[in-house]
Amino acid sequence: MKIGMVGLGKMGGNMARRLLKAGVQVVGYNRDANATEQLANDAGLIPANTLAEVIAKLETPRVVWLMLPSGGPTEDTINELKGMLSKGDVLVEGGNSYYKDSQRRGLAMNALGIGYVDAGTSGGIWGLKNGYALMVGGEKSAVDKVIPFIKILAPGEATGWLHCGPSGSGHFTKMVHNGIEYGMMQAYAEGFALMKGKKDFGLDIAAISEMWRHGSVVRSWLLDLTATFLAKDQELESIIPFVTDSGEGRWTVLESVEQGVPTPAMTLALMARFASQGEGDFGNKMLAMMRKGFGGHDVKSGD
Amino acid sequence: MKIGMVGLGKMGGNMARRLLKAGVQVVGYNRDANATEQLANDAGLIPANTLAEVIAKLETPRVVWLMLPSGGPTEDTINELKGMLSKGDVLVEGGNSYYKDSQRRGLAMNALGIGYVDAGTSGGIWGLKNGYALMVGGEKSAVDKVIPFIKILAPGEATGWLHCGPSGSGHFTKMVHNGIEYGMMQAYAEGFALMKGKKDFGLDIAAISEMWRHGSVVRSWLLDLTATFLAKDQELESIIPFVTDSGEGRWTVLESVEQGVPTPAMTLALMARFASQGEGDFGNKMLAMMRKGFGGHDVKSGD
Repeated sequence: MKIGMVGLGKMGGNMARRLLKAGVQVVGYNRDANATEQLANDAGLIPANTLAEVIAKLETPRVVWLMLPSGGPTEDTINELKGMLSKGDVLVEGGNSYYKDSQRRGLAMNALGIGYVDAGTSGGIWGLKNGYALMVGGEKSAVDKVIPFIKILAPGEATGWLHCGPSGSGHFTKMVHNGIEYGMMQAYAEGFALMKGKKDFGLDIAAISEMWRHGSVVRSWLLDLTATFLAKDQELESIIPFVTDSGEGRWTVLESVEQGVPTPAMTLALMARFASQGEGDFGNKMLAMMRKGFGGHDVKSGD
Repeated sequence: MKIGMVGLGKMGGNMARRLLKAGVQVVGYNRDANATEQLANDAGLIPANTLAEVIAKLETPRVVWLMLPSGGPTEDTINELKGMLSKGDVLVEGGNSYYKDSQRRGLAMNALGIGYVDAGTSGGIWGLKNGYALMVGGEKSAVDKVIPFIKILAPGEATGWLHCGPSGSGHFTKMVHNGIEYGMMQAYAEGFALMKGKKDFGLDIAAISEMWRHGSVVRSWLLDLTATFLAKDQELESIIPFVTDSGEGRWTVLESVEQGVPTPAMTLALMARFASQGEGDFGNKMLAMMRKGFGGHDVKSGD
């Protein structure tokens, strides 16, 4: 079994490692050649210095798996590969792309006789050990060529992966997965903030998170992670309360608007991140100004 | 080891069973004697027909565990027991009480020399097998007398239970636990609704929930339950979209207001339940009426 892996960062690099460990031949390419070299040296990766070299080192029908940042890097690489791949080859796009982009790309590739599989991938830095949850979309004929690799990448041969449906449905399912993740994280964060805020109980929120891992209704993998971090530091004084967001959270809310189906908690979790980024500041200045205007309430001045 | 258990419903009954299995002598009382009889017949419970009989069948210092509906039933029973318990006895209140009630009750009992332990209990109908997560508040001297029983009820001797802090802190922690649960449930519900709403993908949300259980970031015990239910029926046609709420969700929001700490997702999850109960209907009628008024938009008539 042989596969091309394009993008050897946190995700792609570890996925290459997991495949290599299982005896798969992996031809790997990364824009920064250091990652390629390291994987070649310590895990037996077949290094490639260009996309063309990846293609040249694979036999048809080829399977090439992209694991790149969504947006420009993914789009550009797909456009380059379009002219290099042959009929019957399959391109797997494992990044966090908007599912509508995947549908569009799938149509374009299929028109050239090239299979296109969108594979939403979850598991983060823990995937190397535990396996990656893989949400896969695309035509059955293309997906079938990728399944042998999926079974290695997933937590189990029959668990943690699913051919969800047609092109785009893999990334759609991953998008919703991340939307749920936003909501769950927000709920935990709020709960721990309330416990921290209850000064007179002096609660040990590290011990509480650890206790909840066993037998409670809120036990989860996110709680496992949380307990690990809180065990080291439950004051969080060194952490800046700024939370970034990536595409999926926003796309989930767009999807909600397009469908006209309410997703208030997921939407609010996204909005809370925007606020954490300071994007609510102008609105809050407006509110402070209005309160001064109608009630003479003090306004805190920044100077 | 001997304990009195008052309230032998879904929670108290199974907790008595778990204690009995471990060789604890349990004197049990329930308002409806059927539950008492059944536990006496098939699990070796020592039956009591009145609260006074529970007290009489225990040796001092007694430990009596209440597992009753919060509010009236718990308050009334505590008031009755107040006159029956002796100095050095300990009353454990394991229901879902508001932590401020527990603080008040704790003070009153301590004034009589009786220990008072508030024990937030999670685990539902699965606790008999898996053990109960127990969040415990109260004075150390009182809690120490109860710990031998807690170690049996909890998932493990050293896991799934915690003496959180002073009187009230057990129920406070359980309250926050349930608030988080509201938020997590809402996030899952919204995500599954979006997937169900994406008709053209024809997603098998039962298969997706099962897949997510392995390796995904949103895996949790709530997801395990969800997957079990969806495997049997993913259309949910027989289920009325009416979601009840209990005290903890409301108290969590009250706590947020009292502390001035934002808990938007947990608050919104509670509000979504109110809406599901029809309590948003009048507001929605108002909106429909206003839209008609300023834009001539059609109003759906109920007749």
